[in-house]
Amino acid sequence: MLKSASSFRPLRILLAATLATALTPVAALADALIDNVTGMTLDKDGKVVRFTGLLLTPDGKVARLLSAKDKRPDKLDWRADMKGRVLIPGFVDSHGHVMGLGFRLLELDLAPTKSLDEAKARIAAYASANPERKWVLGGGWNQESWALGRFPTAADLDAIVSDRPVVMERADGHALWANSAAMKAAGITAKTVSPAGGRIEKIGGQPSGVFVDAAMALIQKAVPQPLAKDRNTAFLKAQNELLSHGITATADMGTTLDEWLTYRRMGDAGNLRVRIMSYGGGVEDSVRIGGTGPTQWLYNNKLRLVGVKLYGDGALGSRGAWLKQPYADAPGQTGLGFMSDDVIRNLMSRAAMDKYQVAVHAIGDRANAQVLDAIDELAETYKGDRRWRIEHAQIVDPADLPRFGKHGIIASMQPVHETSDRTMAEARLGPARLAGAYAWNTMLKNGAPLVFGSDYPVESPDPFAGWAAAITRQGPDGQPYGGWQPQEIVTREQAWRAFTMDGAYAGFAEELFGRLGHGQQADFVIVDRNPLDANPTQLRATKVEETWIGGQKVWERR
Amino acid sequence: MLKSASSFRPLRILLAATLATALTPVAALADALIDNVTGMTLDKDGKVVRFTGLLLTPDGKVARLLSAKDKRPDKLDWRADMKGRVLIPGFVDSHGHVMGLGFRLLELDLAPTKSLDEAKARIAAYASANPERKWVLGGGWNQESWALGRFPTAADLDAIVSDRPVVMERADGHALWANSAAMKAAGITAKTVSPAGGRIEKIGGQPSGVFVDAAMALIQKAVPQPLAKDRNTAFLKAQNELLSHGITATADMGTTLDEWLTYRRMGDAGNLRVRIMSYGGGVEDSVRIGGTGPTQWLYNNKLRLVGVKLYGDGALGSRGAWLKQPYADAPGQTGLGFMSDDVIRNLMSRAAMDKYQVAVHAIGDRANAQVLDAIDELAETYKGDRRWRIEHAQIVDPADLPRFGKHGIIASMQPVHETSDRTMAEARLGPARLAGAYAWNTMLKNGAPLVFGSDYPVESPDPFAGWAAAITRQGPDGQPYGGWQPQEIVTREQAWRAFTMDGAYAGFAEELFGRLGHGQQADFVIVDRNPLDANPTQLRATKVEETWIGGQKVWERR
Repeated sequence: MLKSASSFRPLRILLAATLATALTPVAALADALIDNVTGMTLDKDGKVVRFTGLLLTPDGKVARLLSAKDKRPDKLDWRADMKGRVLIPGFVDSHGHVMGLGFRLLELDLAPTKSLDEAKARIAAYASANPERKWVLGGGWNQESWALGRFPTAADLDAIVSDRPVVMERADGHALWANSAAMKAAGITAKTVSPAGGRIEKIGGQPSGVFVDAAMALIQKAVPQPLAKDRNTAFLKAQNELLSHGITATADMGTTLDEWLTYRRMGDAGNLRVRIMSYGGGVEDSVRIGGTGPTQWLYNNKLRLVGVKLYGDGALGSRGAWLKQPYADAPGQTGLGFMSDDVIRNLMSRAAMDKYQVAVHAIGDRANAQVLDAIDELAETYKGDRRWRIEHAQIVDPADLPRFGKHGIIASMQPVHETSDRTMAEARLGPARLAGAYAWNTMLKNGAPLVFGSDYPVESPDPFAGWAAAITRQGPDGQPYGGWQPQEIVTREQAWRAFTMDGAYAGFAEELFGRLGHGQQADFVIVDRNPLDANPTQLRATKVEETWIGGQKVWERR
Repeated sequence: MLKSASSFRPLRILLAATLATALTPVAALADALIDNVTGMTLDKDGKVVRFTGLLLTPDGKVARLLSAKDKRPDKLDWRADMKGRVLIPGFVDSHGHVMGLGFRLLELDLAPTKSLDEAKARIAAYASANPERKWVLGGGWNQESWALGRFPTAADLDAIVSDRPVVMERADGHALWANSAAMKAAGITAKTVSPAGGRIEKIGGQPSGVFVDAAMALIQKAVPQPLAKDRNTAFLKAQNELLSHGITATADMGTTLDEWLTYRRMGDAGNLRVRIMSYGGGVEDSVRIGGTGPTQWLYNNKLRLVGVKLYGDGALGSRGAWLKQPYADAPGQTGLGFMSDDVIRNLMSRAAMDKYQVAVHAIGDRANAQVLDAIDELAETYKGDRRWRIEHAQIVDPADLPRFGKHGIIASMQPVHETSDRTMAEARLGPARLAGAYAWNTMLKNGAPLVFGSDYPVESPDPFAGWAAAITRQGPDGQPYGGWQPQEIVTREQAWRAFTMDGAYAGFAEELFGRLGHGQQADFVIVDRNPLDANPTQLRATKVEETWIGGQKVWERR
């Protein structure tokens, strides 16, 4: 698909006939026009601008937006008639996991399953269809959407596959479900101790088969590492999926060294299409890659190591999110803080010292408070344009919400998490502690830059699902009526910003992309309807027809 | 120095005045001429060609060699008059350690020391001049050139520095010399066991302070890792040193992952000048970098992961070289084979499977036989143009010498090792076993491609020292009279090939560089005399005045 996508390559044919014009730089004569579009973008102040033509430079930038009455240039190297179709800027997903998405697409996907029995049937079918796979790997399960009322167990898996290890990752990436063969391969026994920041689920003193957060590593170390060729394939799968949803740039949250090396291989071979703002997984690997600071943009603005991703806590579904008060549905448990106040502040400081941007995962109110405290302290030392990021910022103590307005802290949030998780969040927290939950509008009111993403592969990368959720706080089923905590709804334009130009800002890339205007990269999508006119149901159903990056068509619906 | 070096950048000014000529591709008009040179190169058959002008293309390749009577083009963007100076192709060092050279230049260099006392004085002075360094690091020592008759000891170091760790690497990189503080930091005690492939030197049952080959890791793991900024600095130091000796391309033998990441940072920032043919240190890191095979040439032909470097044994000086019969000066010791026959063959096979070129370090006759055996077996499976390399091939059983002529095995050898090490080799092996030592001419007679390098920083990267050694088998002092084992002398042109075009061949780069001819990269040096006319003493004293890579001047003597 990628290789055969037609692409716009400006021809450097020289048309001038006199010495005087021949001395004009050649490039300036080689322009292209995307004409006859129903075009919409935000300008740099966030106001909607409409246009009918898009004039491109030979190096794939926007030269100018043209209105219907603007005269089209006489001399063009290339021209496309879009026949009135809708053209909008490409989307920026501010929080995703590129390689995670790729492997999810290559391995068994349990996300669509509605019950444990359905999941078991899929696993059994997959294992028998893939006898050559020595480990049966997959992910996407969620005991909440199965209405199981408990975690699944190793025994559930043993009943269907006992001859080889099975390991399935939870949808949120914060827990693993293993069968007995996998636990045996990993050397797990009743005596194995839960590591700091992790939890081995137990039943009657025996490991039950679920490993939460830092305990996941106990199993992961036994899983064979993917081969480099599998990484290449996974990347191409992920990229194609992102492009098919109109995502032209993405933050990659927690890039490992091997993932970085994969992106470089892709870039070297000319296979990078989507723009990746990479946040290295931890300080150590980031510094190994970037050396004395973030890399520059590589491969013609396709890849950059921007900053460092750190984890403050786990996730709500697996009760790893770190709360100020115990879970409503697990008295005595308050979740897992991954690091002490000193350690997380020191790591953030180490990263900031070399001007890496710092992005910290914080889901529970205690974790959010910890990161806010750390930023309060570090902002004294590290002045200038730092753009501290808190990822998810899901459950925030209302008393802490105004603190996002200080030091320019970016709230990097995922609208679909709210609609997918609201009943689970109610169970985990009880009704009294939801005032600061998924508080998008309050973030904006407090002056915090709000940016949106999907956390793919935890959720689908489809930005239209997120956009619709953001303006309704309702799921695809239209529930709940009027929206959940509707005071946190944001406007259509606010959500659009958060999925485009502000996402670029959050990755220090606002001069490069995020909207369509003079000098910006020509990253845009052709969609099948006007998302500014569509009702929420229609908006959610919007389909991408073509995706263009840097003035080249890189994906097309077939 | 690097940044200020003037460089040739073709100007894309258009001179044509009519439509017809204006349609000619612009690039073809932008040529440059290096004129009035005493030019010499080898042609692709290895014959000497002389020329007086070098016509370059705008992208830094050789368009044509011009003789005195050839008409010079009328239209040129750029022209340099070299006033008759001598111009020859840039040198290719087929075996070096780029980052090792850089750190040697940054740390304490003991290579010039002539006695243990002199070394101790230098270490003491360096330690007191650098009180901020928590570890005192350096290298270049050689107990042979000190005429010490034994290894140095921790006690020797303790007498001068006892307050902090001191670790000094042997000149050949195959042993470390540590003081007691370093051994304490590394947790070394009398009970510490020598690892496979390594040896902890002992005196009276106690570790003496010298750690050979695989035992070096016991100390190294305690040494603080260099910071990324130190790596950057070390790289730039090394590059400048290589360019100052006229080396325009080098094999980097055993690139670690962090070294590769350093080269990429340099390439990304536009700081790569010298061309690096990288051989990854071991299969695992190579595959992490290259994925399913060698990389392509990156950064406009400046960096490529070509293959994998493996170690068959240690070195002669530290008695780590693996011999068929015991050392003459250490009865009962036969040195260290790093891997079993099966393991080394499997690693070579794993690399060859994905078309990585395989380069194996083998110094002793037993190690050479092991690698030859492995190639014999693997060549059945991995057909085609594989260019198996044996690095050093120093001490070969005369019975094994003809085996280098089979399977196209490349003998990658270092002339200066012969002149530096001959008395040590005589001591280690005794006179009866030297018939296959440093057997350059025999390699050629047997039809094995012979390529030369310096093994910098073990020796100076100066190719003129190597060239002079190759045609004399005498040291800088002219000893021994008539040359050591003079039947292994090679001709001036044979040595030149081995330091240029055949070095490119050994890295699968003969289409890119290694000589001056149509389509080759314009990599050349201006030197202060004619190396084809000079007597050996004069040849050895040749100085590089300018170094050009890809048509750009990248180094100039000040």
